Amino acid sequence: MTLPPGMSQRDFSAALRQLETAVGKEWVFSAPEDVALYRDAYSPFWDEEEERTASAAVAPDTVEQVQSVMRIANEHRIPIYPISTGRNLAYGGAAPVLSGSVVLDLKRMNRVLEVSEENAYALVEPGVSYFDLYRDIQDRGLKLMIDVPTPGWGSLIGNALDHGAGVTPMRDHWSTQCGMEVVLANGEVLRTGTGAMPNAKTWQQYKYGIGPYIDGIFSQSNFGVITKMGFWLLPEPEVVRALRVTAPRHDDVIKMVEIMSNLTYSGVIDSQFTLASPVLNGPRDAELEALAARPGGGTREEWDRYAESKDRPFWSARFTFYGPQPVVDARWEYARQRYSTIPGVQFEDGPTYRFPMSREQREQAPDKGMLGIPSLSNFTGRTPATPEVADGHMDFSVIVPMTGHDVLAALKVIGRDFAAAGVGARMGTISSFHLRTFILISSFPTMRADREFNRRVRAAYERAVKVTADNGWGQYRSHAAFMDLAVSKYSFNDDALSRFHTTLKDAVDPNGILSAGRYGIWPKDMRGSA
Amino acid sequence: MTLPPGMSQRDFSAALRQLETAVGKEWVFSAPEDVALYRDAYSPFWDEEEERTASAAVAPDTVEQVQSVMRIANEHRIPIYPISTGRNLAYGGAAPVLSGSVVLDLKRMNRVLEVSEENAYALVEPGVSYFDLYRDIQDRGLKLMIDVPTPGWGSLIGNALDHGAGVTPMRDHWSTQCGMEVVLANGEVLRTGTGAMPNAKTWQQYKYGIGPYIDGIFSQSNFGVITKMGFWLLPEPEVVRALRVTAPRHDDVIKMVEIMSNLTYSGVIDSQFTLASPVLNGPRDAELEALAARPGGGTREEWDRYAESKDRPFWSARFTFYGPQPVVDARWEYARQRYSTIPGVQFEDGPTYRFPMSREQREQAPDKGMLGIPSLSNFTGRTPATPEVADGHMDFSVIVPMTGHDVLAALKVIGRDFAAAGVGARMGTISSFHLRTFILISSFPTMRADREFNRRVRAAYERAVKVTADNGWGQYRSHAAFMDLAVSKYSFNDDALSRFHTTLKDAVDPNGILSAGRYGIWPKDMRGSA
Repeated sequence: MTLPPGMSQRDFSAALRQLETAVGKEWVFSAPEDVALYRDAYSPFWDEEEERTASAAVAPDTVEQVQSVMRIANEHRIPIYPISTGRNLAYGGAAPVLSGSVVLDLKRMNRVLEVSEENAYALVEPGVSYFDLYRDIQDRGLKLMIDVPTPGWGSLIGNALDHGAGVTPMRDHWSTQCGMEVVLANGEVLRTGTGAMPNAKTWQQYKYGIGPYIDGIFSQSNFGVITKMGFWLLPEPEVVRALRVTAPRHDDVIKMVEIMSNLTYSGVIDSQFTLASPVLNGPRDAELEALAARPGGGTREEWDRYAESKDRPFWSARFTFYGPQPVVDARWEYARQRYSTIPGVQFEDGPTYRFPMSREQREQAPDKGMLGIPSLSNFTGRTPATPEVADGHMDFSVIVPMTGHDVLAALKVIGRDFAAAGVGARMGTISSFHLRTFILISSFPTMRADREFNRRVRAAYERAVKVTADNGWGQYRSHAAFMDLAVSKYSFNDDALSRFHTTLKDAVDPNGILSAGRYGIWPKDMRGSA
Repeated sequence: MTLPPGMSQRDFSAALRQLETAVGKEWVFSAPEDVALYRDAYSPFWDEEEERTASAAVAPDTVEQVQSVMRIANEHRIPIYPISTGRNLAYGGAAPVLSGSVVLDLKRMNRVLEVSEENAYALVEPGVSYFDLYRDIQDRGLKLMIDVPTPGWGSLIGNALDHGAGVTPMRDHWSTQCGMEVVLANGEVLRTGTGAMPNAKTWQQYKYGIGPYIDGIFSQSNFGVITKMGFWLLPEPEVVRALRVTAPRHDDVIKMVEIMSNLTYSGVIDSQFTLASPVLNGPRDAELEALAARPGGGTREEWDRYAESKDRPFWSARFTFYGPQPVVDARWEYARQRYSTIPGVQFEDGPTYRFPMSREQREQAPDKGMLGIPSLSNFTGRTPATPEVADGHMDFSVIVPMTGHDVLAALKVIGRDFAAAGVGARMGTISSFHLRTFILISSFPTMRADREFNRRVRAAYERAVKVTADNGWGQYRSHAAFMDLAVSKYSFNDDALSRFHTTLKDAVDPNGILSAGRYGIWPKDMRGSA
């Protein structure tokens, strides 16, 4: 059995008994088969010494119980690792960053506390999944759309705290967050924004409150346990309509991205758009590998000849528009018109969806994410239907400036790096995951039964972090197993920002009980050893 | 001469000499006539004991000089009060919250460091005013629009840090902030977001970086000195077109606000809209006063009769649309169509502006704010042309939920309160200053030569804070003279949020040298005495 670092079995058992008093005996888990459920199913260290595993788990049902857990943890110096629904797969799952931590499982706190149709917001607990909120809204017949990531079983709060995203106009989940309740490491509870004014009615409508706007410091960190969070929602649109644009040549990306970014910053495009190269991130062959391996990565003429020989457009982009029919049509048409200035460009209209949609229409719609319908259909892990996939994967997501030059450079540099690594790392599309940059999400496979393979994958992952950082493309989010590395690349002025994070950490959690190591932030006595 | 609290003249003079070494003799000001320039021209305590005044001012030109000032201030425990351009008029101006502070005047740091037309952003220093950035963009012929508050001589950074706003789609200035450089109290410099990655190119395009997103804690606070900040800009639109809607009856506000909020949350309306009642906040007469004074504040029928007798529409709203002509027209028309469902509604089209505009057209445009053109034409202080106005005024700005019921209640409750106070406090329009709430900005006059009047104004101001907080309408920003009071209303769980703020303060500025008292945050040794 894993124990918290430096704690005896006897002291730990005594602490667990206290936790049982706080939350009920049946909600403290220390049997190996129960604790195993909190392993990271996709761990790149599966069954190795370095795999990060929990010592126990505790599942409170109320804010008061969370407060009690914090007080007990402080008393016994037990490392606590809060999770919402524990679905942070591909970034570390439910497993703690520090082995021996007690997982604080907030799944039971799954109440949708309020949904306002008039002011288009929801207030939820951490255990509320996208499915939960979606069903609540549908069951009550409210004309609201939520924004869902892929897949939809995760927690709204957990995803927002990790700066996750979906595809609709509300896709940047952190930016839609409005007001939170936090249990601090010392067990005190506070509310941010206007939630701190006892009778204010704008907790979910005005973000800043008065004085320092602190919400952000609780994201990607370990400064408190979020027990409630508000989210801005989109009123159900009349229409959702897509537009696909393809352009034939290598250098067309310059103009394509220029138009994209201009339309985005102008508010004409208001949702996620994706950009892919059916050539650069399409099927690879010997000719392509040879071209990519040339000094400078091939000239534009060589690439154009290659694309033409394969009869593939060099670039493909997809946009989606949300709103009233005439406004959507005007935006769609304007975007088409702007793109018509690129010679050889081709368009594809739709799909188009009209609301309200019946339950059956929703269930049958193939583009669920675009419609804010949670699903597991885009689930990329191995399922009974897809036994050939790797056991798991680690996502690797970098921030790329919204310019054609950067897109070209990123696809070529990362493509070359992945090819050299030879572990089957795959590049995804480049998308406007957040508002004014692209995120390029790639994934590295992991295999439970092949330690040697996993070792190579880890080395390739670490090299990819280095290669992208050298090019100025930082990670927007980190896999739990590589957080120190990810953060170390944000090193301006002798790691001034990281050192500031630890200053905050020591102030708000002096005993360092919360999520040791998360995003490179370690308690005082573990620093440097990491 | 005012001295820093607890400091001898001799020690202070020695400290000033050190500051002179750091920034140059000519940039340290301690002569009474120089220091007087940092008085709050609108102070409600003008020439009284309690007027907050500086002991000296220091004006560095570089980040390194700011760092030196911080180190000297820490050594001598000198309270420092940073200002950007010092134009925070109506909220306290350039004067420190704690008398005897040394004003750190950042006006000389007025470089526009970068403007990207392609990615629509700017990186500026704190001394850069809206005029400065506007001129830079115009001189270089860049197709970008900035968002300006009224008036335009203030600092972009200062305004954003106070959560100020303008009227275009980029009006919520804090929400357009992207990436900053901060000099901490200990003299260290850090960069937030991807600015912490030495060669990243997305400092002004991706807000969160990796790990805790800390930018917010530097707003409305005293945790650091911001020396650089990025801002998202709007590409110059093809067209700016306005729509005015009036509705005849008292209860029409319910439907009007319902449509407004729905269109806003749906992205059809993307800029500030204002709502006013030509009746409730129009000219007052005896009949109106009598009606307002009735128990419950008058019935809807009584109000409708009153409005009809005056031949005034009860409500008036104004919207502005930005973007390509066909998209703007579609939005405009859709909004008009939605409002047509209210019986008796009337519309007014325009004004409409088309870009590009010549320099002459810009100079002559009456609606400068709407076009992102800074001006002093909406300046509400006394000018040579308006000698009848009070010497100054204090703004009082509360957050009101975006519902018709709240609008009605706010106008009536605040109107009644102001009438009872009898000091000439004036209600402004209700506007979507930020994104999903209304802000109701009122103002209280101040008179330099009339202490008794100012005493009554202060009492009225304090009562207004109490009355509005009792109704759940918090202040989004506080006047420097009433910060403790404003913050005290955000008191959930025994002031848990305020206590958290002081925990952060003690961690990041242990000697409490920065902006003591700002937003109710005091250094350890001054707490409770405030």
